[in-house]
Amino acid sequence: MPGIGEKSATRLVYWLLRSPEGTVKNLAEALLAVAEGVRECSICCNLTALEPCAICAAHHRDEKLICVVEQPQDVLAFERSGEFRGTYHVLHGAISPQDGITPDKLRIRPLLERLRDGRVQELVLATDPDVEGDTTALYLSRLLHDIPVRVTRLAQGMSVGTEIEYADAMSLARALQNRRDFK
Amino acid sequence: MPGIGEKSATRLVYWLLRSPEGTVKNLAEALLAVAEGVRECSICCNLTALEPCAICAAHHRDEKLICVVEQPQDVLAFERSGEFRGTYHVLHGAISPQDGITPDKLRIRPLLERLRDGRVQELVLATDPDVEGDTTALYLSRLLHDIPVRVTRLAQGMSVGTEIEYADAMSLARALQNRRDFK
Repeated sequence: MPGIGEKSATRLVYWLLRSPEGTVKNLAEALLAVAEGVRECSICCNLTALEPCAICAAHHRDEKLICVVEQPQDVLAFERSGEFRGTYHVLHGAISPQDGITPDKLRIRPLLERLRDGRVQELVLATDPDVEGDTTALYLSRLLHDIPVRVTRLAQGMSVGTEIEYADAMSLARALQNRRDFK
Repeated sequence: MPGIGEKSATRLVYWLLRSPEGTVKNLAEALLAVAEGVRECSICCNLTALEPCAICAAHHRDEKLICVVEQPQDVLAFERSGEFRGTYHVLHGAISPQDGITPDKLRIRPLLERLRDGRVQELVLATDPDVEGDTTALYLSRLLHDIPVRVTRLAQGMSVGTEIEYADAMSLARALQNRRDFK
């Protein structure tokens, strides 16, 4: 489990062994209920207990704008920012051949399905700004080349509140390359 | 001194007191030599022992492109990135009224001097992406409004290698606002 090393695991096991009768059984049942109750939304592929998910079902969300992310956690990050009023599409990963993650492992087909009726106007490719995320964005932009939809990518540059003095060389280089007119 | 608290200071003083005769004197003389030998470059206002500084004197740097930064350390950050082939202008601070740093405290007049002969084609406003840096960039862009020079700002968004899941809300919002066409 992420963030749980040998020491934490040992501590947890002993805590479980010392816990009152029934605790372990309750925990196991709760885990099963979660695993059974949570599925992928048939529209956006995000994990959800509802069908479709709350975001796809919401009337006030802009269905013409789709933010394409790698993981369900990324949806939460955007929702926290409060900046995005469109819908999402969760790929469940990023292209990484050395890890065996090829494009067919991602939820790309359901994304293309969503574009079929021509109502979607813009896809924001919001995969991570790293090698796998950039590769995935490039792959998608080529795949979408002949489909009449606007394709954009999240801006890359200096993140808010960082100091240039301590910025990494790559981010500074991108910030320079992507500089914008300011007058 | 930055990064030196009470404990470090005490340790340093004791080290100096225990050091062989002459050490303190040598250190003091070295400090004076540094203070005497280092001045502001008459062109870019960066700290330098030469006049003009090595960057302003270099023939292969593009004098038509000026990167405007807050501090001498920012010049080092850009030089490390290896991306920038123009020259710099060091403001020696950013506008911050509550700290008493008003525009007249910055090296803005020497910057305007450099624009006078019309040879400079672009100013990249590379002040920090924080309140003071943004304020300074806005102030400069207004000041330069009627001067025929292109004014750009470093791109703001996701820094390279960050994960969207852990990105701060402000950076995500900027990355969305500044998204660019990618097809």
